[in-house]
Amino acid sequence: MSTHRYTLTIACPDRAGIIAAVTGFIAQHGGFIVEASYHTDQESQQFFMRQEIRADSLPFPASEFANHFSPLAQAFGMRWKLADSALKKRLVLLVSKQDHCLNDLLHRWRSGELQVDIPCVISNHEDLRGFVEWHGIPYHYVPMQDKAAGFARIAELFEAAHGDSMVLARYMQILPPELCTRYAGRILNIHHSFLPSFIGAKPYHQAYQRGVKLIGATCHYVSDELDAGPIIEQDTLRIDHGDTVDDLVRYGRDIEKAVLARGLRYHVEDRVLVCGNKTIVFR
Amino acid sequence: MSTHRYTLTIACPDRAGIIAAVTGFIAQHGGFIVEASYHTDQESQQFFMRQEIRADSLPFPASEFANHFSPLAQAFGMRWKLADSALKKRLVLLVSKQDHCLNDLLHRWRSGELQVDIPCVISNHEDLRGFVEWHGIPYHYVPMQDKAAGFARIAELFEAAHGDSMVLARYMQILPPELCTRYAGRILNIHHSFLPSFIGAKPYHQAYQRGVKLIGATCHYVSDELDAGPIIEQDTLRIDHGDTVDDLVRYGRDIEKAVLARGLRYHVEDRVLVCGNKTIVFR
Amino acid sequence: MSTHRYTLTIACPDRAGIIAAVTGFIAQHGGFIVEASYHTDQESQQFFMRQEIRADSLPFPASEFANHFSPLAQAFGMRWKLADSALKKRLVLLVSKQDHCLNDLLHRWRSGELQVDIPCVISNHEDLRGFVEWHGIPYHYVPMQDKAAGFARIAELFEAAHGDSMVLARYMQILPPELCTRYAGRILNIHHSFLPSFIGAKPYHQAYQRGVKLIGATCHYVSDELDAGPIIEQDTLRIDHGDTVDDLVRYGRDIEKAVLARGLRYHVEDRVLVCGNKTIVFR
Amino acid sequence: MSTHRYTLTIACPDRAGIIAAVTGFIAQHGGFIVEASYHTDQESQQFFMRQEIRADSLPFPASEFANHFSPLAQAFGMRWKLADSALKKRLVLLVSKQDHCLNDLLHRWRSGELQVDIPCVISNHEDLRGFVEWHGIPYHYVPMQDKAAGFARIAELFEAAHGDSMVLARYMQILPPELCTRYAGRILNIHHSFLPSFIGAKPYHQAYQRGVKLIGATCHYVSDELDAGPIIEQDTLRIDHGDTVDDLVRYGRDIEKAVLARGLRYHVEDRVLVCGNKTIVFR
Repeated sequence: MSTHRYTLTIACPDRAGIIAAVTGFIAQHGGFIVEASYHTDQESQQFFMRQEIRADSLPFPASEFANHFSPLAQAFGMRWKLADSALKKRLVLLVSKQDHCLNDLLHRWRSGELQVDIPCVISNHEDLRGFVEWHGIPYHYVPMQDKAAGFARIAELFEAAHGDSMVLARYMQILPPELCTRYAGRILNIHHSFLPSFIGAKPYHQAYQRGVKLIGATCHYVSDELDAGPIIEQDTLRIDHGDTVDDLVRYGRDIEKAVLARGLRYHVEDRVLVCGNKTIVFR
Repeated sequence: MSTHRYTLTIACPDRAGIIAAVTGFIAQHGGFIVEASYHTDQESQQFFMRQEIRADSLPFPASEFANHFSPLAQAFGMRWKLADSALKKRLVLLVSKQDHCLNDLLHRWRSGELQVDIPCVISNHEDLRGFVEWHGIPYHYVPMQDKAAGFARIAELFEAAHGDSMVLARYMQILPPELCTRYAGRILNIHHSFLPSFIGAKPYHQAYQRGVKLIGATCHYVSDELDAGPIIEQDTLRIDHGDTVDDLVRYGRDIEKAVLARGLRYHVEDRVLVCGNKTIVFR
Repeated sequence: MSTHRYTLTIACPDRAGIIAAVTGFIAQHGGFIVEASYHTDQESQQFFMRQEIRADSLPFPASEFANHFSPLAQAFGMRWKLADSALKKRLVLLVSKQDHCLNDLLHRWRSGELQVDIPCVISNHEDLRGFVEWHGIPYHYVPMQDKAAGFARIAELFEAAHGDSMVLARYMQILPPELCTRYAGRILNIHHSFLPSFIGAKPYHQAYQRGVKLIGATCHYVSDELDAGPIIEQDTLRIDHGDTVDDLVRYGRDIEKAVLARGLRYHVEDRVLVCGNKTIVFR
Repeated sequence: MSTHRYTLTIACPDRAGIIAAVTGFIAQHGGFIVEASYHTDQESQQFFMRQEIRADSLPFPASEFANHFSPLAQAFGMRWKLADSALKKRLVLLVSKQDHCLNDLLHRWRSGELQVDIPCVISNHEDLRGFVEWHGIPYHYVPMQDKAAGFARIAELFEAAHGDSMVLARYMQILPPELCTRYAGRILNIHHSFLPSFIGAKPYHQAYQRGVKLIGATCHYVSDELDAGPIIEQDTLRIDHGDTVDDLVRYGRDIEKAVLARGLRYHVEDRVLVCGNKTIVFR
């Protein structure tokens, strides 16, 4: 991630010659491809690609890329995006009282592993203010007794912060459909079960009652249907009969942290392309 | 497993002194405990234990164990069982057309890893007769056009074979509730999903449609509710967006084999105790 | 794998424009790319690529591909290969007495999962003849009391069978350097440890003595240095203090089967490119 | 962990009747066993056990346990220990510049998951002072230009803090044999490889050079031989050819944190018994 790069992501109807056209365009301008990934979704016959290009190998800046690329993009009916590694994404984190994901993300941020800006943290509790502010990050307390007012305030803060994405880092409030739709593909949640098992509240209690032998966590984009948005990353962990619900909660925190961190990294590095209610993750 | 052993499994209401009473009883007769496991289920306040005892360390044969142990068992309200490693369990395998689990189990059996007798294999197709009979194991074709007659025939064959347990090794028929109840805790199934996700038919298609990032398999006791019996063993495997349904089916076979083999071993070695709709597995 | 495909694998010095040149060549002939993977090795500055092309989309047969592609290949200094999915690879399996890997591979073969030809199985014991011949596959007993004669006979059988690759499926003989060199990149071995730990004999005993908490298996190309060739695939499995060496051997068989099967599939599908003593595996 | 408990750990030569004698002793005093684990090491014929007893079920305090238990302990030649959950263990953490393990452990501590006292953190750098002191924990900078003086100072600080155990949380100094011997079984290290592979410096570079397909981490007791002490916990993580050394370092941090946290919890809860150069971990 150290060199200056552009990440070009493209989705379009599948046909022969797309890779040749795009890589030909890049080569014609002297562009040096550092990483390249392709995928065709068989059901929708949509083609997806992601290329990382060394910025210094192109003769024009990112701002002029569209001028050059548009004719080709139109010819193939592409939806496309060019991300510039010099412009860090701005993540607004939302938390409640549990801070294991927050602690994990802030460490990755302050150690330079997670290369983003965090303009602010929003919470419906005051508990985590001290820890967040120690990092020099503004902390906004938004009470949720009045949900409509609360969510309006959150949207306002997100816009004021010029946020690119929201991260629900164990935020214990259900976002209204209107927000989910407005920021589709820009809100990540970590759910503490292996979806689609154990949707909704208290998934570890549900898992305990069902007697499963593994528990899991799921990082997904938030959609207007609860815990049903496109899945970005999941993982599971072995438990056994000796584990109480409290043990599941405790072990679960470790998978939640890991799964959210991985899913968020894929999102931040533009590795996730949404295809219907599924994701393509170019790792 | 080479030495002659008795495996004593016990369930009873929890209270102080149970371990002392049972291990005291064994010690008083000179019994040598090779492996010992204990668990209290907090919800039901039931206590579960499993002990492996060297057979040659006891001064009486298995047939007389009950005489000596009954007073203590009654005092504590125990349900208990003594399994003798010299008496192999008799497993009747049920299969349809897919043979990956069958191939795996028969290899474990003929290599001596799975120490059981397999009096026969039952199938609703003729396809696997040759492979089964090569092992010297009788193969019964039971057509299922008439389900009632078919299942009656299966029960008859199972009884005639003095079967201890049935193993549904990718048997594509749903057993009638009556059979499930009659042989509760004695019929194992391998379901090709991470239950409770994707119950019923075509779980890999369901998994593909939902866009999960891991697939799984579940070995469980069959109960009268479809795919809802006590879970014995589960596992998951990472997939990604490039995998088709056919790929999931192919990868899935490997988890199915592994999960069924492990679950079946726990069952055969009397490591599984049922507690409500959950299992305690003393690995 | 059902449609007729060509798999083009290429290695050459890295520079800008390679992907464009190759995909441009394919597009210019109307070729339809089904799967595409790229990698640059930073140390050696070598570029590696693999493309699957629909055979029916090209206007010439595989035999004429070289005519068309050679000028481009020479311009970029490419080593390249075109594999035709219609021509199954011919694998010669070598075994000793343990048959878990053999049983696993033959099942994958007879179920159609592993799309190869198996012209023969070679062993230094007679034990597995019956099982192999049941599959209709010739079985050659090659005693190894005289190692030089034995290995000469093996090479002779391999050549007579027009073998593409040898698979040492728990073959308990160390191949002479001369054979390893002659068939570099064409002999796969499964070693029963997580290399580079526990090289050589009795790795499970070594693992037990060291008190590791996971055991592993490694599929690698055989080179003239024992257990030091390029690694294709590895995996590990959790054990604990209660497990004896016999338990490790038993659990280990399951990882050995899985790791060999995966590694072999990558090899058969031309997904493995060797780079120095490392492999690139385009999964 | 919320109720007041005693944890009794015992090691002695194996023979019949040990469990009966110990559980009989506990039962005779009305003791209620909450968790019980047993193991016989076949090679040394040593028996190991661990029992958790509800403190309020015994009629005497922990301080008088020895008076009552000694006759039995002597009769069986036991080495034993009774830990009181009311007395938290005192852990002294040693760090250098990398803080991912420190950040993880301090979060577990401040959230109440890791129930210990941390009297101080010692480092050979000043970098992490601010973060540690924010937690209200004293931070001691001990420069290591003069190693003898440095280690003498560390021992002095450890003694002054009444430390029970030292945790080397990515402390980049090799402890002198004298310290290792003095505090045998009381110093935990996290090594960033799957031991015994890649002992010593720069294990991720070694792993990258060897081309392994999984990387790992190992939590072990420090002994006077480098990276060769008894292993408490290990884990591995899949990588692939696309990962650079920097990627391995980054992914590795996540396994290091997880493995150290688990190993440390086992240690703190007296679940680890050392047997020669191996550990029994009663999870």
